[in-house]
Amino acid sequence: MDPKERALKAHRDWQGKIEVISRCKVENADDLSVAYTPGVAQPCLEIKENVDLSYVYTRRHNLVAVITDGTAVLGLGDIGPEAGMPVMEGKCALFKEFGDVDAFPLCVRSKDVDEFVNTVALLAGSFGGINLEDISAPRCFEIERKLKERCDIPVFHDDQHGTAICCAAAMINACRLTGRKLSELKMVVNGAGSAAIAVTKLLVNMGLKNVIMCDKFGAIYEGCDQLNSEQVLMSKITNPENKRGTLAEVLPGADVFFGLSAPNMLTAEMVRTMAPNPMVFAMANPVPEIMPEEAKRGGAAVVGTGRSDYPNQINNVLAFPGVFRGALDVRASDINEEMKIAAAYAIANLISDEELNSEYIMPKAFDPRVKDAVASAVAEAARKTGVARI
Amino acid sequence: MDPKERALKAHRDWQGKIEVISRCKVENADDLSVAYTPGVAQPCLEIKENVDLSYVYTRRHNLVAVITDGTAVLGLGDIGPEAGMPVMEGKCALFKEFGDVDAFPLCVRSKDVDEFVNTVALLAGSFGGINLEDISAPRCFEIERKLKERCDIPVFHDDQHGTAICCAAAMINACRLTGRKLSELKMVVNGAGSAAIAVTKLLVNMGLKNVIMCDKFGAIYEGCDQLNSEQVLMSKITNPENKRGTLAEVLPGADVFFGLSAPNMLTAEMVRTMAPNPMVFAMANPVPEIMPEEAKRGGAAVVGTGRSDYPNQINNVLAFPGVFRGALDVRASDINEEMKIAAAYAIANLISDEELNSEYIMPKAFDPRVKDAVASAVAEAARKTGVARI
Repeated sequence: MDPKERALKAHRDWQGKIEVISRCKVENADDLSVAYTPGVAQPCLEIKENVDLSYVYTRRHNLVAVITDGTAVLGLGDIGPEAGMPVMEGKCALFKEFGDVDAFPLCVRSKDVDEFVNTVALLAGSFGGINLEDISAPRCFEIERKLKERCDIPVFHDDQHGTAICCAAAMINACRLTGRKLSELKMVVNGAGSAAIAVTKLLVNMGLKNVIMCDKFGAIYEGCDQLNSEQVLMSKITNPENKRGTLAEVLPGADVFFGLSAPNMLTAEMVRTMAPNPMVFAMANPVPEIMPEEAKRGGAAVVGTGRSDYPNQINNVLAFPGVFRGALDVRASDINEEMKIAAAYAIANLISDEELNSEYIMPKAFDPRVKDAVASAVAEAARKTGVARI
Repeated sequence: MDPKERALKAHRDWQGKIEVISRCKVENADDLSVAYTPGVAQPCLEIKENVDLSYVYTRRHNLVAVITDGTAVLGLGDIGPEAGMPVMEGKCALFKEFGDVDAFPLCVRSKDVDEFVNTVALLAGSFGGINLEDISAPRCFEIERKLKERCDIPVFHDDQHGTAICCAAAMINACRLTGRKLSELKMVVNGAGSAAIAVTKLLVNMGLKNVIMCDKFGAIYEGCDQLNSEQVLMSKITNPENKRGTLAEVLPGADVFFGLSAPNMLTAEMVRTMAPNPMVFAMANPVPEIMPEEAKRGGAAVVGTGRSDYPNQINNVLAFPGVFRGALDVRASDINEEMKIAAAYAIANLISDEELNSEYIMPKAFDPRVKDAVASAVAEAARKTGVARI
């Protein structure tokens, strides 16, 4: 069957990819008197006295909202809130299968930042965490910042931070493999959207010093007048020599190319201008910035993509289930930089020195060790940084 | 074990009364490529072209939000949004068990009518229906009215309409039993909150002509200056003779007492002043306006309460699961008066003439016939009134 028709048929047959079930037995009047009135009044009164008990007496302790406004769904763009829901449901299914997290999909019918923020913030008492998804840039930055200020539960934009964690894990292992140090690398990031910015920020927080971001018009530098507000912030922590020029002009000598942009932006010739044994990460999906064969022809020592049909797939499913599992386990109030970095190292360290090679720098998506490794590292980082509440 | 401690322990053991599960298999990369990227793009694009397909390709067709602001939880009052969640989760469990409806609990951290309305309205694309719960009067009237205007899916305040449907079913069968007609009855309703108003409105729409509502200060009459906006509306369609006075003063000669108020408001002596063979419905819970034994001492021919330990329990669980089941089955855009009346007759008609007696005017809460009977009657009424979309 044609893959598109197969996907449609599967979705029709599933009749939705998530389902809400009851965990309590209600088979007779006695059951009803415990699960519902009058018994239910007791947990209500306990929570009234101490709102933290909502984590004990309701499902909140394991519940994450997966929320979109439908403005940047996959690579499809602004397709509307309802049309984003198959992705949200899929994400919820992955949360359950990979993290044992109960995730519930919600779409918000508004493109107004403050209206979206208010809607989500007012629901925060219903959940233990909020996973934002498929929201267009630069709105997503403002939305996340405002929600983090207003919510007492973790707010995590997976397109940014899940991607950043997985990319950081790939970088950690590519450095291990090629004997480099993050702090000594020269990196060029192609793309200046939400994922590119998040990856760059996280790597800078992990010690990367020399990085240049390129948008369509070329290198982002301080003072450039084509930047949105978030790119202005990035111009201040990147491009230390304030270089200008196209990707091809700033790439020579770089140790790493990180593409979070569009298909076919990089050629083997351009790879040949990089430092010896360069690392190439081409995350555009399904068609990457450069195909792995082509990158290797240009001399790349290690190549990673978002594709499952090539080695070194960099897949968000390695991060978000374990990140939220860990955050929920300690009732974290936030998912901070330290927790993200801990998650990246936990993913990277699943591959031993003996196993590590240029075709195996990332654990497989279905590696059963990932969830627990990430969750415990995230929980420990939450405790160390004071955001764990139990 | 003490019932209160038993309820707390049960809630701790359940770790939440609902759970979100996955309906799709994701065990390998191939599964992932259908349920998630790249396959998921296809249903997204279909829904983008025709938003009604969200009922086909996502769980929306079976999903109801159970939403509160925590301002009127059970008889506990304004205990806060999180503290209302054990009731919402319980309701969701009942939706599943009694109606095979996926219901998801949400609490909104706002007591502002417009903010609440906006939050819920912006989420309407995620659900097939909205069940409002435990919202204080008179705010609940304005909230429901505004939401019905803004939403393209059914909005149903169960404390009002679920109660009204069940009370109407009880009235239908009490009339059958005592050989009366609704249109010829004289009824007194004690209480003037949301449930009392909803019951009165529905019975008036079903043909009741002579009804007086009493609030704490006595009969509600047109021109009375102690009424809230909703009570003012009720003063225009009730109390045709514009009587004034206390409950005891307006009750004499009434065929029906309907209490939706507080414990011990009615005495056997007061029942004795009513018409011969009166009907007494005392819905205050757990302690009714009058205990059934006492009502019978006063001469009541039939007595109903909210209690499961007496005959003729009037329990909302008879209505809301089947009402939403029927509404979802035909993708109804609204739950209108005709659908509520159809539900009431469907519940009442489950008891045959042979079975009907003064101790059996209402089907049992666990009668397995109720859901389908109510659902098909509601679906048929939706079709007849043009609100069914399939």
